[in-house]
Amino acid sequence: MKEFNMNGINIIDGGVTAAVGFKAAGMNVGIKNNGKKDMAMIYSEKPCVAAGTFTLNKVFAAPVKWDKNIVYNQQDAQVVIVNNGVANACTGVEGDHACELEAKTAAEVLGIPETSVLLGSTGVIGMQLPMEKILTGIKELPAKLDDSLEAGTVAAESIMTTDTRSKQVAVEVMLDGKKVTIGGMCKGAGMIHPHMATMLCYVTTDAVVEKKTLQKMMSGIIDDTFNMISVDGDTSTNDTCLVLANGLAGNAEINEANMNADYDLFEKALFYVLRELSKKIAGDGEGCTCLFEVQVKGAESKEQAKILAKSIATSNLTKCAIFGHDANWGRILCAMGYSGADLEPEKVDIFFESEGESLQIVKDGTATDYSEEKATEILSKNPVICVADVHMGTESATAWGCDLTFDYVKINADYRS
Amino acid sequence: MKEFNMNGINIIDGGVTAAVGFKAAGMNVGIKNNGKKDMAMIYSEKPCVAAGTFTLNKVFAAPVKWDKNIVYNQQDAQVVIVNNGVANACTGVEGDHACELEAKTAAEVLGIPETSVLLGSTGVIGMQLPMEKILTGIKELPAKLDDSLEAGTVAAESIMTTDTRSKQVAVEVMLDGKKVTIGGMCKGAGMIHPHMATMLCYVTTDAVVEKKTLQKMMSGIIDDTFNMISVDGDTSTNDTCLVLANGLAGNAEINEANMNADYDLFEKALFYVLRELSKKIAGDGEGCTCLFEVQVKGAESKEQAKILAKSIATSNLTKCAIFGHDANWGRILCAMGYSGADLEPEKVDIFFESEGESLQIVKDGTATDYSEEKATEILSKNPVICVADVHMGTESATAWGCDLTFDYVKINADYRS
Repeated sequence: MKEFNMNGINIIDGGVTAAVGFKAAGMNVGIKNNGKKDMAMIYSEKPCVAAGTFTLNKVFAAPVKWDKNIVYNQQDAQVVIVNNGVANACTGVEGDHACELEAKTAAEVLGIPETSVLLGSTGVIGMQLPMEKILTGIKELPAKLDDSLEAGTVAAESIMTTDTRSKQVAVEVMLDGKKVTIGGMCKGAGMIHPHMATMLCYVTTDAVVEKKTLQKMMSGIIDDTFNMISVDGDTSTNDTCLVLANGLAGNAEINEANMNADYDLFEKALFYVLRELSKKIAGDGEGCTCLFEVQVKGAESKEQAKILAKSIATSNLTKCAIFGHDANWGRILCAMGYSGADLEPEKVDIFFESEGESLQIVKDGTATDYSEEKATEILSKNPVICVADVHMGTESATAWGCDLTFDYVKINADYRS
Repeated sequence: MKEFNMNGINIIDGGVTAAVGFKAAGMNVGIKNNGKKDMAMIYSEKPCVAAGTFTLNKVFAAPVKWDKNIVYNQQDAQVVIVNNGVANACTGVEGDHACELEAKTAAEVLGIPETSVLLGSTGVIGMQLPMEKILTGIKELPAKLDDSLEAGTVAAESIMTTDTRSKQVAVEVMLDGKKVTIGGMCKGAGMIHPHMATMLCYVTTDAVVEKKTLQKMMSGIIDDTFNMISVDGDTSTNDTCLVLANGLAGNAEINEANMNADYDLFEKALFYVLRELSKKIAGDGEGCTCLFEVQVKGAESKEQAKILAKSIATSNLTKCAIFGHDANWGRILCAMGYSGADLEPEKVDIFFESEGESLQIVKDGTATDYSEEKATEILSKNPVICVADVHMGTESATAWGCDLTFDYVKINADYRS
């Protein structure tokens, strides 16, 4: 992708129902005993081309297996059904059968082929799905489907686990004289260290786009967005990111065979939506108090910049220091040193930034005479931005994480109880 | 090394002063304001052959650089001087000069060559050493040197940072009709994810052993001991493990050119000392409540077993579950799945063990009908032992970690203040 800027991209309210022809719904079907919404549906009036990226964890959930087959081997998809509370991972053959039954039921109720039903699950690993509740949900959700922004929000709320807020983004672009909308929703908040995709993310668009092109474009963007966030270093069994395009905007087809200005603008808009959604996950990591953005500049290669940025963003010691508003740059340099990437420590400059202010903490690998008071002030804001310039070349990369707090431990020591 | 057993190895009290001819001392020189001991010295009556392993972090401390030169390029070493509170890492040329001055001063006071002085530092990264206090310590410590077990304990206490207890191990073996003793001390407790060595570990022996043989033997053992522990995934800038052998036991030289029964027994004894010291570090990780031992069996290769065991022992989510006494096996299977090692999830069996009891939690990749109450009972003991059999071959490996607790976050959010 060319240099990213927001030219031509208009940020709007909403999420998965922002694009033309998409409806959504959510409800409590009783998987969660506390009455919180635990099931969501996203439906398109018209069959969509679908692209997807999925966890690379060798232990992957049954719905991941199901969706891969649909995305890779079928031309169309028309509905996404997500349950919350049980991950349907490590559930053996019974887990696969549950997916088949879900799709069969949805196909009957909605009058669409089984092969256009996409599935998602999030929650406890190892438990079987409570199928009676799930099937009741699949039968009752279609009557609740609505194309309002509120319905999109209800769906986004229905997939929240330990998330403290729902996560949606939407943008508009003009392509070929037609208004094209892209909107998405996602959820975190623990077991977040995506490898090819993240926990659950669903993006809808009314753009006309070729399936192969959409998949290729999306996979490239995921590498710089979802694959650059981490909450705890644990890559989930259920990571799934799907993009559905129903073509109702009527623009000239976006196709890699013709990489024109519209192609570039659509790619930028999709990049923006996926990047903002991924930042929302990092910034609402389990127990966290802030988003921690790490920019590495001056690297010899993009790969080196990525490894260094991720190593800093995932260092437990650095994350505790961020929680303590402590400019503990030694831990940052230490995390760069053990990352496995090339580094000349004596060349490294480190800055903390916030709201336009920049404070240099390290110059040429050792501390500057900075004010600890000022550093604490900058580190008390949200997001906390750390910039490391390694002075070895011209490549850069950004990673996103969050601080490590008492509440992360509390949430995860108690999760199943 | 052949199958490990304790035949012929006698565990005794003590640490670095257990072997003949070694003295130690410790004191407060004022680096720490709270009066706690902050400087240690280990001295051998007779020049020693020395072996060492050091951090592979590209950001390494000045004393690591100093010691590497001594261990790799000099035949003898006779004293180790360790300060606590300041790591002398990321200190540039001034840090190197500090090491030179320390060695010069010690050489004068002790009447030995500068090239036989080994140095170690632990504490905050990025601060310069308070040289006046350090040099005072180097001048005062020789008068306190003593060969009693108590003196060894004082030295072990003097290198503690966030450690809650001092860490020592000693054993005796009979080689060639002579009693040979090996004793050591080490410290943790955060920034522990050793790569080739760990934070600080010092082992002394009166064995007669060829320098090259000692280095080779030690490097092999480190791979299965210190390189298999982790507290927080952060590889330190100061990791140093040294073994000093002064030859006063008078046994026939241990030499790789003659791998006889004595060679094997000495290797086993050294393995035991290094393994127990590394377990002491894992079991006293910052804020932890228990040692978490992970055994992976039935692997196709040793490397695969190691990767799987380390992935489980370092998973933040698994470590939180251990803190919560929660048999959250899904997180364990998930950590195995994202480790990068080969795995057939549907073949995996998982057990928790404690005090001779064993409870199978997972069979063939899915949950058994185990009692959660019984699991919680086993998980409430210390150590917690997790055994994962992957049923793919005959190789095995063990990794050691600890649980992740509120106190880990507290210690590391406040460390510098």
